[in-house]
Amino acid sequence: MIVSALLTSVGINFAICVLYFTFYSILRKQPSYNHVYIPRLVAEGKTKKGNGDFHLDRLLPSTGWVRRAWQLSEDDLLSSTGLDAVVFMRIFTFSVKVFTVAGVIGICILLPINYFGTQIKASDFADIPNKSLDLFSIANVNDGSRRLWVHFCVVYFITAFVCYLLFIEYKYISSKRIAYFHASKPQPQQFTVLVRGVPVSRLGKFSESIGIFFTEYHPSTYLSHTVINTPSRIQSLIEQPAAFVSFKTRYGAAVASDMRQSDNPTEWVTEQAPEPRDVYWPFFSPSFMQRWISRLVVIVLSIVLTVLFLIPVVFVQGLTNLDKLKTLLPFLKGILNITFVSQVITGYLPSLILTLFLKIVPPIMMLFSSMQGFSSYSEIEKSACSKVLIFTVWNIFFANVLSGSAFNQLDTFLEPKNIPMKLAAVVPAQASFFIAYVVTNGWTSLSSEIFRVVPLLSTSLKNCVGSHDDEAPSLPFHSEIPRILFFGLLGLTYVFLAPLILPFLLAYFCVGYIIYRNQLLDVYEPRYETGGRLWPTVHNSTIFSLLLLQTIAIGMFGLKKLPVASTLIVPLLIFTLLFNEYCRKRFLPIFKSYSTESLVKKDRENQNDPTMPEFLEKLATAYRDPALKPNQESAGNHDHRTPLLSSA
Amino acid sequence: MIVSALLTSVGINFAICVLYFTFYSILRKQPSYNHVYIPRLVAEGKTKKGNGDFHLDRLLPSTGWVRRAWQLSEDDLLSSTGLDAVVFMRIFTFSVKVFTVAGVIGICILLPINYFGTQIKASDFADIPNKSLDLFSIANVNDGSRRLWVHFCVVYFITAFVCYLLFIEYKYISSKRIAYFHASKPQPQQFTVLVRGVPVSRLGKFSESIGIFFTEYHPSTYLSHTVINTPSRIQSLIEQPAAFVSFKTRYGAAVASDMRQSDNPTEWVTEQAPEPRDVYWPFFSPSFMQRWISRLVVIVLSIVLTVLFLIPVVFVQGLTNLDKLKTLLPFLKGILNITFVSQVITGYLPSLILTLFLKIVPPIMMLFSSMQGFSSYSEIEKSACSKVLIFTVWNIFFANVLSGSAFNQLDTFLEPKNIPMKLAAVVPAQASFFIAYVVTNGWTSLSSEIFRVVPLLSTSLKNCVGSHDDEAPSLPFHSEIPRILFFGLLGLTYVFLAPLILPFLLAYFCVGYIIYRNQLLDVYEPRYETGGRLWPTVHNSTIFSLLLLQTIAIGMFGLKKLPVASTLIVPLLIFTLLFNEYCRKRFLPIFKSYSTESLVKKDRENQNDPTMPEFLEKLATAYRDPALKPNQESAGNHDHRTPLLSSA
Repeated sequence: MIVSALLTSVGINFAICVLYFTFYSILRKQPSYNHVYIPRLVAEGKTKKGNGDFHLDRLLPSTGWVRRAWQLSEDDLLSSTGLDAVVFMRIFTFSVKVFTVAGVIGICILLPINYFGTQIKASDFADIPNKSLDLFSIANVNDGSRRLWVHFCVVYFITAFVCYLLFIEYKYISSKRIAYFHASKPQPQQFTVLVRGVPVSRLGKFSESIGIFFTEYHPSTYLSHTVINTPSRIQSLIEQPAAFVSFKTRYGAAVASDMRQSDNPTEWVTEQAPEPRDVYWPFFSPSFMQRWISRLVVIVLSIVLTVLFLIPVVFVQGLTNLDKLKTLLPFLKGILNITFVSQVITGYLPSLILTLFLKIVPPIMMLFSSMQGFSSYSEIEKSACSKVLIFTVWNIFFANVLSGSAFNQLDTFLEPKNIPMKLAAVVPAQASFFIAYVVTNGWTSLSSEIFRVVPLLSTSLKNCVGSHDDEAPSLPFHSEIPRILFFGLLGLTYVFLAPLILPFLLAYFCVGYIIYRNQLLDVYEPRYETGGRLWPTVHNSTIFSLLLLQTIAIGMFGLKKLPVASTLIVPLLIFTLLFNEYCRKRFLPIFKSYSTESLVKKDRENQNDPTMPEFLEKLATAYRDPALKPNQESAGNHDHRTPLLSSA
Repeated sequence: MIVSALLTSVGINFAICVLYFTFYSILRKQPSYNHVYIPRLVAEGKTKKGNGDFHLDRLLPSTGWVRRAWQLSEDDLLSSTGLDAVVFMRIFTFSVKVFTVAGVIGICILLPINYFGTQIKASDFADIPNKSLDLFSIANVNDGSRRLWVHFCVVYFITAFVCYLLFIEYKYISSKRIAYFHASKPQPQQFTVLVRGVPVSRLGKFSESIGIFFTEYHPSTYLSHTVINTPSRIQSLIEQPAAFVSFKTRYGAAVASDMRQSDNPTEWVTEQAPEPRDVYWPFFSPSFMQRWISRLVVIVLSIVLTVLFLIPVVFVQGLTNLDKLKTLLPFLKGILNITFVSQVITGYLPSLILTLFLKIVPPIMMLFSSMQGFSSYSEIEKSACSKVLIFTVWNIFFANVLSGSAFNQLDTFLEPKNIPMKLAAVVPAQASFFIAYVVTNGWTSLSSEIFRVVPLLSTSLKNCVGSHDDEAPSLPFHSEIPRILFFGLLGLTYVFLAPLILPFLLAYFCVGYIIYRNQLLDVYEPRYETGGRLWPTVHNSTIFSLLLLQTIAIGMFGLKKLPVASTLIVPLLIFTLLFNEYCRKRFLPIFKSYSTESLVKKDRENQNDPTMPEFLEKLATAYRDPALKPNQESAGNHDHRTPLLSSA
């Protein structure tokens, strides 16, 4: 791709963004679109329904929403949207910090060095628009040049800087998570565990045997339990129920969920209960074996999906290599020779098609995760998030990189020792594609995020019919986080290869910061609160990006005939792995469970709270399948709840 | 190696064994050698000292000890030697079962098929002694022959049979472990946790802050604690002590060791306390960071040792390829051409040298493991056991296999997809070496185990001087288990390649069964009791052997031009991995900690036991560094034990 093609793509997308933002700022002020642009406020009853009074400034674009989103403090965000949303926004602030520093280094130091190299051809200042973008990448630096040591230093500096920031962030979010727990009111999930694998008793009465078991082994803390009955045919086939067991203290519940209950590790399996609103009721309470097998099946399915997805990826890559296409479809030659058409096709179309294909992946991964036997939406979404992330990195990064230049060599790619060299040979060649991808997929995703095309159309339709539901949607973490993290991976990987990508990424993260803050306030209502459990995914993904950067650096310095630099990257790679291992030990346990210290302190706080007895009484009915509630009383045989509290 | 060379080696070793056993049965009856052959009985005072009366049958060899070892029931063994010894003996019974079945199949079915193949040369019945052992291996089966499907079926059958036995054993030993716990008397380690990473308090008084912490967060179960003070310079440099904290109930201690205590996961780190006699006192109570770094250092050291050890291995392999040696050292040609000398050198010497070199590895690995910050001998020995096992498999199996035929190709070996083919090409070629290794190393190790050469010499010396200590040694699990498991690996790997190895292995396991039972009764006194925690190592090692067998089978059927069989082994490999994963979930947790069910039941039992108050009182002094005891009272500043029980 040449500079002018890139500029075309940037121009188109910039125009689309401006257009969307303008329309948004007008439509947002129309009360008839409240269900599209401020559904959260509508659901919370914070806005008037109806058309309201008409003012002229309702038709003029404005920037008030930008100022409001910018000025909002983190504490306000926390109180109005929860810790998960705050942690989500920390991905943006973290990325902005990283790519501001990386961008300054990349544009001010690396870009000139690359441009003044002579590996590709002697360069001059004239006719920049027709120059290949490769001139701005490391490919243009002469082999064995001493200037490559600058690139080497940048790899070291960026790794150290990112690790430092990662540590600070992990520490900060850990402390936020603990503070959040300490500030929380008594909540059912803190006092409850989910029990699965209840063994079949002689009498066949599960509810009784659950009561007997917990009265026997947790006499001082056991409170009550609710057997989960999914009145479906599948349930009746399985003959093994789950139950929510409530305890008198948080610590009691935590002990019951942390300790192995039964001599047989596949029976009486306990885990922390999710929030009542977060429970994924159709989870069928399968047995240990069934859950295990379904997990394996889901892994196989995910692999199949990943393999099948290579087909559109290969097709899309055909578009960036126009010459191939001309040979393949000669009748298109006339059209493809028109400059504008070819620029649109090489610069815009490939990533657009990819974007559309990628839209269907998150729902599929959600479906897969829901088959794994998770008991809550949050776990399903977290698992889907990881799946989508791996899928994205593999199918967008690796498949593109390989299909563009070395797809037939996939076989030789499987040899571990060749990976750095191969990556170094093929990754820089895809720089221009990924710049276009950032501009197209990234920028467009932001503008469509704020403009909300699909809800806009459906609401327009409903406006005609006249029916509305007042429910606000929740932020789809599983599709948004992988996309944002993937841009982070692109940035870190290309930071020393093709620094031209960095300003576009920085723009993405800055605008994204404003837009998602705005959406969290106006549009999305949290469906659950995990207390920032998504951060370890972000951390791991960033570590992976660093390792990828270093692996490519090892290969690149080898290719550029600077083997000493290549060898000297290895200690950095080992340092990164050790750093990650340290963080895993230092911070990860905080995101798994709360400590004795926190739990006991919190229990002490509530010891003399006069509202506690009432809360504990309500616990017994906190976990009820909403599908069962209407006919619960009549269908008495479904109601296995123990109505009485056990003796203290 | 030809058949006669093998027979020479078998003959030499058989003679040595018979000689040793004869001498043993005589010397055993001499009271002056009681300290060599029945030190355990001496230590327990079950035998008379002095020379006793003289009878003629004291000078005649006898087999009474064999009968006694054979007739002993498992319950008797359990009561006199503990569960670890029982589990150790289960390795032999397990192996005997496996190799009886494998041996029958191998000798009756595979051996004739191999011998009547014509791949190496047309075979007849005459002159067997001068035939190469390769004629009895799969190498002699014709390429693409239908008879290879018999080998294929054997791979499937052996895998299924071994997995079945593994499951039965794991289940049996799990139940034994639980039963052992239920039958046990109150023991200090059941009521105690080891706490490390006590944060520096403002006052700098660790003992007080430990007391405050556990009184605060475990008010109803905390009993007392003992700060560990190693009065060494290293200790004073570190400024961070550990402590043994005792609880009133087993469940209280288990909860404290299972739950994360502090918000900072690197502080107040708890683990189950070892038995008082099992504590490794010089463990320096290092900080979290120090333990982590020393673990990394130990890993690096182990890798270095493994690499350096290749030198003797390569030298030894030179001996089996006599022609190479003749070219290298031409002046030896005359001697080497003598049949007997060459047979000794190819058949006996290589494994003897290897055996001697291998002797030094277990002590080194023990040293390494002791640097990892483990708090008990049992953990150090378990860790050393795994290290020695990995070392043995890598350096004896892989290094021999590679150095014999493909050592220069180590580089290409690193390509994962080539591994099956390479292994299949080189492993069968080493069959005769490993047969000799079983006969030499295995059989000799058994005879020297029973004859106890080193203690015999040292006691003879002491007999002159006249001084004896009455301490019985403990069984060195870390050197014995890897050797036994390695023979299991050899057997499983060669079961379908060269079944000739199986009778020799079976003989090893049968004789080993008698000898180790005898030694456990007479010689070794258990130094600790882990309740059979070594079994998972045995299980994992066997699973690895199965996977190796299958990997080689995939390559072998490929080499033998039966690609369909090659492909059909893959599902078996996946099945084995899944089976292992299932066992990991089903049984492994039982070997990590006891369940709430067991703990609470056991606590209830002792609730009304009148001896409990006395036991709990003794708990406070159960954990004392023996090095400190003599001057404990005088050096009061070292004694940070809280003498008073905390309030309930």
